[in-house]
Amino acid sequence: MDTDDYACILIERDGGYATITMNRPQRRNALSSAHMRELIAAFEEIGATDALGITLAANGPVFSAGHDFAEVADADHAQARDLLQTCARLMRTIQSVPQVVIARVHGLATAAGCQLVATCDLAVAAQSAGFAAPGGKGGWFCHTPMVAISRNIGRKRAMEMALTGDIVDAATAAEWGLVNQAVPDDKLYQATQDLLERATRGGPRSKALGKQAMYAQLDRPEADAYSYATEVMAASSQTPEAREGIAAFLEKRPPEWPT
Amino acid sequence: MDTDDYACILIERDGGYATITMNRPQRRNALSSAHMRELIAAFEEIGATDALGITLAANGPVFSAGHDFAEVADADHAQARDLLQTCARLMRTIQSVPQVVIARVHGLATAAGCQLVATCDLAVAAQSAGFAAPGGKGGWFCHTPMVAISRNIGRKRAMEMALTGDIVDAATAAEWGLVNQAVPDDKLYQATQDLLERATRGGPRSKALGKQAMYAQLDRPEADAYSYATEVMAASSQTPEAREGIAAFLEKRPPEWPT
Amino acid sequence: MDTDDYACILIERDGGYATITMNRPQRRNALSSAHMRELIAAFEEIGATDALGITLAANGPVFSAGHDFAEVADADHAQARDLLQTCARLMRTIQSVPQVVIARVHGLATAAGCQLVATCDLAVAAQSAGFAAPGGKGGWFCHTPMVAISRNIGRKRAMEMALTGDIVDAATAAEWGLVNQAVPDDKLYQATQDLLERATRGGPRSKALGKQAMYAQLDRPEADAYSYATEVMAASSQTPEAREGIAAFLEKRPPEWPT
Repeated sequence: MDTDDYACILIERDGGYATITMNRPQRRNALSSAHMRELIAAFEEIGATDALGITLAANGPVFSAGHDFAEVADADHAQARDLLQTCARLMRTIQSVPQVVIARVHGLATAAGCQLVATCDLAVAAQSAGFAAPGGKGGWFCHTPMVAISRNIGRKRAMEMALTGDIVDAATAAEWGLVNQAVPDDKLYQATQDLLERATRGGPRSKALGKQAMYAQLDRPEADAYSYATEVMAASSQTPEAREGIAAFLEKRPPEWPT
Repeated sequence: MDTDDYACILIERDGGYATITMNRPQRRNALSSAHMRELIAAFEEIGATDALGITLAANGPVFSAGHDFAEVADADHAQARDLLQTCARLMRTIQSVPQVVIARVHGLATAAGCQLVATCDLAVAAQSAGFAAPGGKGGWFCHTPMVAISRNIGRKRAMEMALTGDIVDAATAAEWGLVNQAVPDDKLYQATQDLLERATRGGPRSKALGKQAMYAQLDRPEADAYSYATEVMAASSQTPEAREGIAAFLEKRPPEWPT
Repeated sequence: MDTDDYACILIERDGGYATITMNRPQRRNALSSAHMRELIAAFEEIGATDALGITLAANGPVFSAGHDFAEVADADHAQARDLLQTCARLMRTIQSVPQVVIARVHGLATAAGCQLVATCDLAVAAQSAGFAAPGGKGGWFCHTPMVAISRNIGRKRAMEMALTGDIVDAATAAEWGLVNQAVPDDKLYQATQDLLERATRGGPRSKALGKQAMYAQLDRPEADAYSYATEVMAASSQTPEAREGIAAFLEKRPPEWPT
């Protein structure tokens, strides 16, 4: 897909960083099939470059309202399934690109919008932002959003979000671990950029492997995770980046990552 | 079992809500086999009705002191095993009834009493309440209570509770995520009812499915959880409640759940 | 290995307690193969005694800087693998000794040094202490340290530590659950000893079984964990310590643990 062909999102590149901005404010950035397919294409497109970090942001009053109910209203079982599989593929894509992905959240992040925040590697929220899985107070439970949300926060809190559907404010989201920080609204851009820059120092190939290995080990039983992580860490000790990083440390000089 | 036959508990119904009250204050609501069998019967009985929510509460100075040591003292291996299997069955029953189950905790919730709190979908505690797994400072470790407790709080905190056996106060329990809220003692009833009411809005069938699906996905590896949740959410998109919820949202009117 | 033969560590015994002190301050207590093998031998040696608790502490300005880069710099794949397998064996040993193991952390605990803290059953940190997985900002990602760290804290926080490599202060580490307490520096010794004493009351065989069973059940799906814990708890109800603990409770007298 050509960048110019994106209708729902904007892509901006600045040095080693890219920003993907959901740009359907009039639809509250609802995640229609088309919107999700563009997001997948954009993450894959930037994922194939040597960008170091990706910010997922949004234009308009809310971050994202989740699935597009206008689209869901007409969907039969097969269509609903297709929509949700596209959504799950979007979440997998975010976790599988080599870049660090950070969500910059303002306004509301609800349902699949909240799932996006939970899925990004890191997230910073404006103090006025809110988070919810509102299906619980409707007629269609937020089953798939809760897969991501419940892997970031404790069980009782996940149940409270899922069952009440009520909005959790940014400070609470930070306290619960759904986002890394809640910051004053006018500091959102800078705080997100600062965290992203801190998270993208170091050898880029080592970092990309590190991100993948984290997701691969997180859900495994501990002994299994150790078997896996030990092999990955042993093998990666022989990479040019590891060699350079260790040499630079011992020689007390800044590393120069091989290109 | 007929309601009138319950000797250890009281059942109260009020509109869409039921309250099960452990009523053996003189035994500190110890979970004897008889007491647990009544609790199982009560949850199953209410579970089969169209009640929306169930509060688990207690009469007397403590919420529950856990297993009845008078009974355990005489138990051989087979009897102890039977007792613990009944206990595990009680926990499974609480998580498998279609209703939202909330614990209203005052006084002490210790050992299997603390396990009850950890097992309920939601929990509100009076500020003066305390939580403990005291087996760690005795001779019989709280193995099964820790299964539930360690799935609500972090590992170091679970180890601290398990190994010290000391009482954790309500504010700390809320901070750790063992309960949803710690509130002033005189606000306990109202805060519990408020949270239960917020947690029981929405389509009741959708909610019941949501509760089940949460417990089914929580322990699975993420990719597996997505496979499961995607199918459940796709199928449930076709239910009358989902259709009505989505239509009501789009038509900006309150939903009317089909009976 | 004879105690006198330890070159990297010191062992001190005081009543029912033992302290293992990493004693290579000039190397920032880097975990060379020799150092890790001594730690394994020390935990196994004390593990075979009737000591109740073990404190893991450190001499010098930092707790431990992780693997010894001077050693890693020359390691080929097989040697790196051997080093990391020794490291994983050290972690398993800490979790498999029958004693309660507590980390007493001052200064910095980085990479495998932070992994040690995450692996101990309990941990107390001086307020001035810091924790980091710095591989993320170098060329060799902290894959194996993150196995332990990510099992103590939430996912977004684990990602932040892993990706940024930045130091987390003690208060934050306590808030996130990486350590049990952060205390004023001059209270570190006493606070650690107090928590260790509280964690080592009760029947020692029951406690040892409890520790093992906790690690065995933590990573299992809930239903599987219940099956396991129910059998362990039923069988252990018949031990002399359980019998004595229950009898003492019913007779309102202090228990006397059988030797």
